[in-house]
Amino acid sequence: MLEKLWKPSSVAVIGASATKGKVGHAILANLLDAGYEGVVVPVNPKASQILGVRAYPDISSYGKPVDLAVVAVPTMAVKETVRQAVKAGVGAVALITAGFKETGDQGAILEKEIAEYCSSRNVRLLGPNCLGVINTHHKLNATFARQSPRKGKVSVISQSGALLTALLDYTAMLHIGIAKMISIGNKADLNEVDMLLALAEDEETGVIIGYLESITDGEAFVKAAERAAFRKPVVFMKAGATMAGQKAARSHTGSLAGLDIAYGSAFARAGVIRADSFESLLDYALALSSHSAPAGKRVAVITNAGGPGIMCADALEKAGLAVAELSRASSSALAAKLPAAASVGNPIDVLGDADPERYATAFGAAQDDDAVDAIIVILTPQAMTAPAETAVVLAENVSGKKPALAVFMGGEEMMPSRAELVERGLPAYSSPERAVAALRAMNEYATWKNRPPRLVTRFPVNIRRAERIIARRIRTGRQQVGEYWAKEILRAYGFNVPAGGLAISSDEAVDVAERIGYPVVMKVASPDIIHKTDFNGVRLGLANAEEVADAFDLITLRISRRAPEAKLDGVYVEKMADRGREVIIGMIRDAQFGPMLMFGLGGIFVEIMKDVAFHLAPITADEAMTMLRSTRSYDMLAGARGQASVDIDAIADGLQRISQLVTDFPQISELDINPLIVGPPGTEPVVVDARLTLPSSWPESR
Amino acid sequence: MLEKLWKPSSVAVIGASATKGKVGHAILANLLDAGYEGVVVPVNPKASQILGVRAYPDISSYGKPVDLAVVAVPTMAVKETVRQAVKAGVGAVALITAGFKETGDQGAILEKEIAEYCSSRNVRLLGPNCLGVINTHHKLNATFARQSPRKGKVSVISQSGALLTALLDYTAMLHIGIAKMISIGNKADLNEVDMLLALAEDEETGVIIGYLESITDGEAFVKAAERAAFRKPVVFMKAGATMAGQKAARSHTGSLAGLDIAYGSAFARAGVIRADSFESLLDYALALSSHSAPAGKRVAVITNAGGPGIMCADALEKAGLAVAELSRASSSALAAKLPAAASVGNPIDVLGDADPERYATAFGAAQDDDAVDAIIVILTPQAMTAPAETAVVLAENVSGKKPALAVFMGGEEMMPSRAELVERGLPAYSSPERAVAALRAMNEYATWKNRPPRLVTRFPVNIRRAERIIARRIRTGRQQVGEYWAKEILRAYGFNVPAGGLAISSDEAVDVAERIGYPVVMKVASPDIIHKTDFNGVRLGLANAEEVADAFDLITLRISRRAPEAKLDGVYVEKMADRGREVIIGMIRDAQFGPMLMFGLGGIFVEIMKDVAFHLAPITADEAMTMLRSTRSYDMLAGARGQASVDIDAIADGLQRISQLVTDFPQISELDINPLIVGPPGTEPVVVDARLTLPSSWPESR
Repeated sequence: MLEKLWKPSSVAVIGASATKGKVGHAILANLLDAGYEGVVVPVNPKASQILGVRAYPDISSYGKPVDLAVVAVPTMAVKETVRQAVKAGVGAVALITAGFKETGDQGAILEKEIAEYCSSRNVRLLGPNCLGVINTHHKLNATFARQSPRKGKVSVISQSGALLTALLDYTAMLHIGIAKMISIGNKADLNEVDMLLALAEDEETGVIIGYLESITDGEAFVKAAERAAFRKPVVFMKAGATMAGQKAARSHTGSLAGLDIAYGSAFARAGVIRADSFESLLDYALALSSHSAPAGKRVAVITNAGGPGIMCADALEKAGLAVAELSRASSSALAAKLPAAASVGNPIDVLGDADPERYATAFGAAQDDDAVDAIIVILTPQAMTAPAETAVVLAENVSGKKPALAVFMGGEEMMPSRAELVERGLPAYSSPERAVAALRAMNEYATWKNRPPRLVTRFPVNIRRAERIIARRIRTGRQQVGEYWAKEILRAYGFNVPAGGLAISSDEAVDVAERIGYPVVMKVASPDIIHKTDFNGVRLGLANAEEVADAFDLITLRISRRAPEAKLDGVYVEKMADRGREVIIGMIRDAQFGPMLMFGLGGIFVEIMKDVAFHLAPITADEAMTMLRSTRSYDMLAGARGQASVDIDAIADGLQRISQLVTDFPQISELDINPLIVGPPGTEPVVVDARLTLPSSWPESR
Repeated sequence: MLEKLWKPSSVAVIGASATKGKVGHAILANLLDAGYEGVVVPVNPKASQILGVRAYPDISSYGKPVDLAVVAVPTMAVKETVRQAVKAGVGAVALITAGFKETGDQGAILEKEIAEYCSSRNVRLLGPNCLGVINTHHKLNATFARQSPRKGKVSVISQSGALLTALLDYTAMLHIGIAKMISIGNKADLNEVDMLLALAEDEETGVIIGYLESITDGEAFVKAAERAAFRKPVVFMKAGATMAGQKAARSHTGSLAGLDIAYGSAFARAGVIRADSFESLLDYALALSSHSAPAGKRVAVITNAGGPGIMCADALEKAGLAVAELSRASSSALAAKLPAAASVGNPIDVLGDADPERYATAFGAAQDDDAVDAIIVILTPQAMTAPAETAVVLAENVSGKKPALAVFMGGEEMMPSRAELVERGLPAYSSPERAVAALRAMNEYATWKNRPPRLVTRFPVNIRRAERIIARRIRTGRQQVGEYWAKEILRAYGFNVPAGGLAISSDEAVDVAERIGYPVVMKVASPDIIHKTDFNGVRLGLANAEEVADAFDLITLRISRRAPEAKLDGVYVEKMADRGREVIIGMIRDAQFGPMLMFGLGGIFVEIMKDVAFHLAPITADEAMTMLRSTRSYDMLAGARGQASVDIDAIADGLQRISQLVTDFPQISELDINPLIVGPPGTEPVVVDARLTLPSSWPESR
């Protein structure tokens, strides 16, 4: 689909220049230096040749259609230049020039015009404000970067061109091979979703890494990333994570869900591994492009020094990985082959004077040991150490059965050996901690790949009833759906709502109470009163007709005094729920990624301890259980330390029903069930209070 | 004090060898290559000269006393060799040879003999099993490392010699200067405490960094480290943090305090900055050796690319630092001097084509701005970027008024510029995240240095009474001090213990209750029953004589059935406490670092949420408040979200009293007040239950 962009048979450099230091010079020079084998067409109104290549005054003068036009002319000339290129029949445009959306409204308008023009002519547009595109397997470097990468399996998508230049310099030092590098710049047309879809299919790409500051379309991103991650590892760094303020929200769920939580949930759903620093992005890419993910968490550590072995074991334990217990067979084999002073436990200490052969012996044993899922080989530069030779021997002995990561600790002398290792397909790091982090990323990917099939349960529900209630609320322009109707909607989705009714007089209230039985709870019903207890609008544990009648009068009296302007629907009389554990389940619709479900234990656990979990809807039963387990307070539900255990499956069931409801009704923007009272296993949880928010101005019909 | 070790005027290399690859060869070669200006005395029974230096068959043949003997002879020859050296009058011995304590009991015995011999002759011993010692300011490299470091201000103490070799290679690449490097090996004599004390006084050392696996004497370490940190920054990496199991403990406090928490508390007390990876050790050292700590948290970021600027802002926010708001004056100055497209907010974006002068302009403005406490300068290698020249210009424009850290992102091309920066005194990093981590470490150090004076309050207490009770318990061999006597001790230390008394009959119980007033609580008193509720040994809310008499009979009956072997002291009758917030305060005596105080909210907060804080005793009022605030549940005490606020000062007071008690009585090994019931401000907390553990076999008298 992007063949014209990254496998062009001809490239025009519009704005090519003979002057060193100019962008149009750098692009042409890179194209030529990288050994591009297609036709190069420099376009410059004043030159007949540049860098020894015949130049043309404009692209139409060349006379034949060109696959890719790389445009590096001044901002004001871009529109006309692109128009000419499109008319001359180019297949794709890479627009390098800056000065568009990033400079303000005028630039944004110009950018939009150009993008719409290209789109109307079916020409894909990269940029503007980008570094260009590299495809090492096609010997294409159509960027103004200072370096050309070596050929390899890592493809890079970046919203920052400068980050690509830094990354190129970093990969040059470490000999990391690159397949494609695409600078998406302002993303006027082509964006991260297009690139993910294309790179997912690209056979030369083994790993996709990327740097993003924003995502154009959250749902499309999740789908594209999931599809890509299914085929190959995807690692992204998302910047701007902490800066964005939280939107003002009326629900608990909303106030607890930051922007970063939405990205975290989206990445987790899609199987995207998140890198939280520049270096980890490449550290992870290195491991993931060299090996398949490990089958498990048991890691063997081979080292020529005790200290770094301990550091590595520490890091493994902190990362949730395990220091493998070697099988008896490999321990004995090692004991027979290594010097007596060597440690044949794990870490395997091959001693300070270990030569390459001794490393090979230990490495072989660890590779053959079925009790080992991955191997970390540590080397420190001691007196007798032969780093270069050890690197070669290790690389030659890789069986490919399980991931092996090298840690060659040091700088000046070790860097060449690390580069040598990388070139030979063994990921190499400068410290145990970084190797362990990369291995943890591999494990995370493996866990996602091996997750159970995502089967979303569809419960039989009364969707018509919910639809009617929501439609009526929207017609009457009510943004807040209060307790009564929220509960009716939840009842339609199979939630257990206590019996009850709305009363507009004390007699009616008593009638309802007599019908449903005592004790009852009474609560004011008003679309204008959200925090009912703040207005003395709730009375609990009413045991007889007299108490109910009194409560009705008291509630209405108090409300008329304290909130005289509030529209009163009446007083809601409801069967009082049995005691149990209070939990909150809710949903906030993220502008980017859609509905995010929330779970937390009620009261202080949510409000003070902020002990909550989020997950993108729709959710599966497995995912709902994972969500529950990921809270610190989970043990309380499971009955630890004398706490009464509750029906955990019933909470997971509730989350799935909410998931179905908010997927069925995109009109619902926020929802809280607070609290849901959960009893012992086998009992049904009770919705004690609930509310739900619709958008302020929703079109009449869906 | 260690002059003979690291500023010797003569060095004997015993075991010097002409054979390349031998340790005795490497040491001699390093000594000569580093340009050592003192006398070098190779000792080898078979050679008359080695590497052009006259050799002696034994050290006594040299005829004059030598300051430092570096011993690298086979393990079995060490004892005799050291004896000869000491007899020949050496001032210090650096014992390189391995094969001692690290190999088992026999080696440990031999090591101890050698150490005791040296100590008896007042000769300090480094090692065994060590790399040796380096002092660049004395041109001394008495190690068998492969490299000699350049001269600088960072001194290194390491328990792992191999880590030093890795570190040497790393500093070679980054041009980090070293003052002293000491490999303490098995620490038979000289250890981290000796080194800290000596390096604290050493004028050539600007920063002390270290790698430790164990600490010889915890209390001495804290004192020495605190003394050193008072003068210069101290950074340690402690390995083996997660591996050690927790000791079986009877108290809550004990079961929650891992070994790592003790190290964390000790480091925090002493002002030691903790590095949690190999790279952060040097990253921190680099920043701390180049600049004084910043005055505050406001950081200006200068960058030639938007993306890395955002990454840096993210990292600052996550680290608890602030993106400074530039003063109006510097914003206008920047607006006047930078191109129109540049951003003069913070991050200050000097644009992709920024030349060294533009960097200098922005750097100058940030240095002059009083609203800025520290500066991070980011450079990515874009088309027009001049890394080497920018490095020089930055280094030349450092005003020294505030810390400035450079981030030159990349590898091959950037590494030399980073090294250039470091050489010129500007710390340089490869990613924003690493620079921010280093800046956070500087801020941590500044916070410790500027902490209020540590004034430990001494409360007037009845120390004699506590002493008598403890002495009596110890005499009778009781390890567990139950509720009754624990409360008596606490009462002597000013705690509010409810009125009560021990009863051995139901009549006596009624007498006590009548005297103190109803309602009362009754609890079994037995040294053999720790978890009283597990044996139905507690009755609450007894309102009259009949209930008290019934309770006495029920408790004694149940205990006689369920724990017939338990020795019964009687039943404790106590005034029932008012309601309030339950908290736990406790102490566990760490084998290394002494008494560690604990605080947590009662019940599930401690048991399930593990929301506790630890601090080494003795504690100040400030530190006690910091401890309370560091729990996640602190807001509950402060009255957030409808929680009743409680007397926080009273809890801090309780922690200080416990601190005084456990400092006065080193016999107390564990202590729990669980719960302490705390009421509203102005009320006194009540000790509802308490217990205390003495060592199993304590000598008769203190």
